[in-house]
Amino acid sequence: MTVTKKDIADYLGISRTAVSLVLNNTPNSTVSEETRRSILQAAKELGYRDSEIYPKICYILYNREPDDPLYIHDLRVIENVASQHGYRLIFMNVRSSTNDFNMLSKYLGNKEVSGIVLTGDIDDDILDIMEDAAVPYVVYSGVSSNRTDVNVIVTDVVKIAYEATKYLTDLGHVRIALFSGSLDTLVHQQTLTGYRKALEEAGIPYDISLVQASKEEDGYELASRMEILEIDYSAAFCVNTVIQFGALQKLKDLGFQVPRKISLVGWGYSELVKMSVPNLTTLYIGPEEKENVVKRLIEIINEGDKDRRTIYLKDTVIHEGGTAALYRSGS
Amino acid sequence: MTVTKKDIADYLGISRTAVSLVLNNTPNSTVSEETRRSILQAAKELGYRDSEIYPKICYILYNREPDDPLYIHDLRVIENVASQHGYRLIFMNVRSSTNDFNMLSKYLGNKEVSGIVLTGDIDDDILDIMEDAAVPYVVYSGVSSNRTDVNVIVTDVVKIAYEATKYLTDLGHVRIALFSGSLDTLVHQQTLTGYRKALEEAGIPYDISLVQASKEEDGYELASRMEILEIDYSAAFCVNTVIQFGALQKLKDLGFQVPRKISLVGWGYSELVKMSVPNLTTLYIGPEEKENVVKRLIEIINEGDKDRRTIYLKDTVIHEGGTAALYRSGS
Repeated sequence: MTVTKKDIADYLGISRTAVSLVLNNTPNSTVSEETRRSILQAAKELGYRDSEIYPKICYILYNREPDDPLYIHDLRVIENVASQHGYRLIFMNVRSSTNDFNMLSKYLGNKEVSGIVLTGDIDDDILDIMEDAAVPYVVYSGVSSNRTDVNVIVTDVVKIAYEATKYLTDLGHVRIALFSGSLDTLVHQQTLTGYRKALEEAGIPYDISLVQASKEEDGYELASRMEILEIDYSAAFCVNTVIQFGALQKLKDLGFQVPRKISLVGWGYSELVKMSVPNLTTLYIGPEEKENVVKRLIEIINEGDKDRRTIYLKDTVIHEGGTAALYRSGS
Repeated sequence: MTVTKKDIADYLGISRTAVSLVLNNTPNSTVSEETRRSILQAAKELGYRDSEIYPKICYILYNREPDDPLYIHDLRVIENVASQHGYRLIFMNVRSSTNDFNMLSKYLGNKEVSGIVLTGDIDDDILDIMEDAAVPYVVYSGVSSNRTDVNVIVTDVVKIAYEATKYLTDLGHVRIALFSGSLDTLVHQQTLTGYRKALEEAGIPYDISLVQASKEEDGYELASRMEILEIDYSAAFCVNTVIQFGALQKLKDLGFQVPRKISLVGWGYSELVKMSVPNLTTLYIGPEEKENVVKRLIEIINEGDKDRRTIYLKDTVIHEGGTAALYRSGS
């Protein structure tokens, strides 16, 4: 009989996670020295051999374009945390095609995978496949979803938008634009909510002309539109770094100094942040907060899928770039 | 006894690859209809069940920063091709630390992985681990290496630099700058070779003042330097999109029109290409050419590691952006 980590966990009456952490030599693990020794002792007594197959977590990127960095950046964080917990990470890029669906169903039917992190543009088709496969999974999304019947880990969009706007009101700005994507989508509606909340708290009246949306998320065009419509503003909250970066380019082309004349604060972290001159000032969900995606999945794997719910990632980090400054009257 | 794909291949006297392609329902595979039918027939006769564990390829990203998009973009291509050949892809992010090395050695010792694509900043330490593990592997590198005792798949840097420079001479440019990274590194020395070759072919004398290197790969500073030193030029070949993008920003800040006054051609494809206004004009190795990385690895897995060698990726694609134009005298 092959002795598994689960056998050791059962023998000692402790969690499988603790056993994995110790036997996989995870650095900086939180297992006490006493527990560590008892696990190593039990492994020896029971004849545990470390040639067992590592459990696997599958990271599925669904329906995204190959050059979209939005999701691929998170892969690193997910892999690191999975590895720390003794899991190997399988990466799969899945499209909504019959071929891909068949392949995926067949693969998940093997039960080789202990759990799934599903990300990308989630729809009912892929969720149906998850349910049929009966493998523990979490949906990880940078934006909001209306689903309440699945385990979701999602960014608290209202909070991000509130904090970014508050960052600008704290700098003394009053005429603050919102550079948004399509207001048809939930994420941008929530952004608007957070933006309005921060304005209200600062006692700044809400002016609809300052809310500018671009379905193509074209910041260059948004900054251009403000100029043509002669809308007065000293700052803008941009709902992503692509919009922020586009706006910065247009403002430069117009000869406007950023941040001396106009301040820009964005949401998110991409290679653009540091590549831009000046660096972009942005708020984003830090890597440590994103560890909760894997932790929640492992919780479901180990303790069962009892209580499906949405978990919000709330802890923001600010990158102090060079696109935001104190308001200067008459600038 | 469990019937494997290898058993079916041996039974029919055909390659294991063909069997995998058919039994994994690979789309667009090149197996003939006749072979396909005989494989399905044999699978039935021998009692093959498709619950076997899929073979796995491991993609190891070694010693790169988390926000470096240079390698992570390739992951998509590698995953697609691996999947088409019936392999699942395991993604691992490895640092040169004792902890990571122990973990990796232990994992590869399981023999769960059929082959490895190793990429990033390769050094002797990681190659030693590969050799000890005795798992088939290829080193995939965007830049050149001096190693001849391993299987390397590498971009033909001289050819890329030659073609990019020729693109500019064909547009009538004569005063063409080279915006390079540190000339201490092999890749940038090869870039210089390709650049000089194209100039020579066009009958343009080599002018050292046009070769400008920045160890920090700061294109903004390079364009600034040209201005301060009053070096006359109408075009520049930039060795990556980060340098190209930085140069474009500086030229805009100086009020120079791109490409009317100065043309910029870059090497590589990143999100910057389409995000920049105007779009960057670049040459790069296309996704189809990159498929050779996985194909070579599978060849080694199936046919043995007989003849270690370096394979060059040569086929370039051009993205016709808006940063390069015909030379205009007096512009």
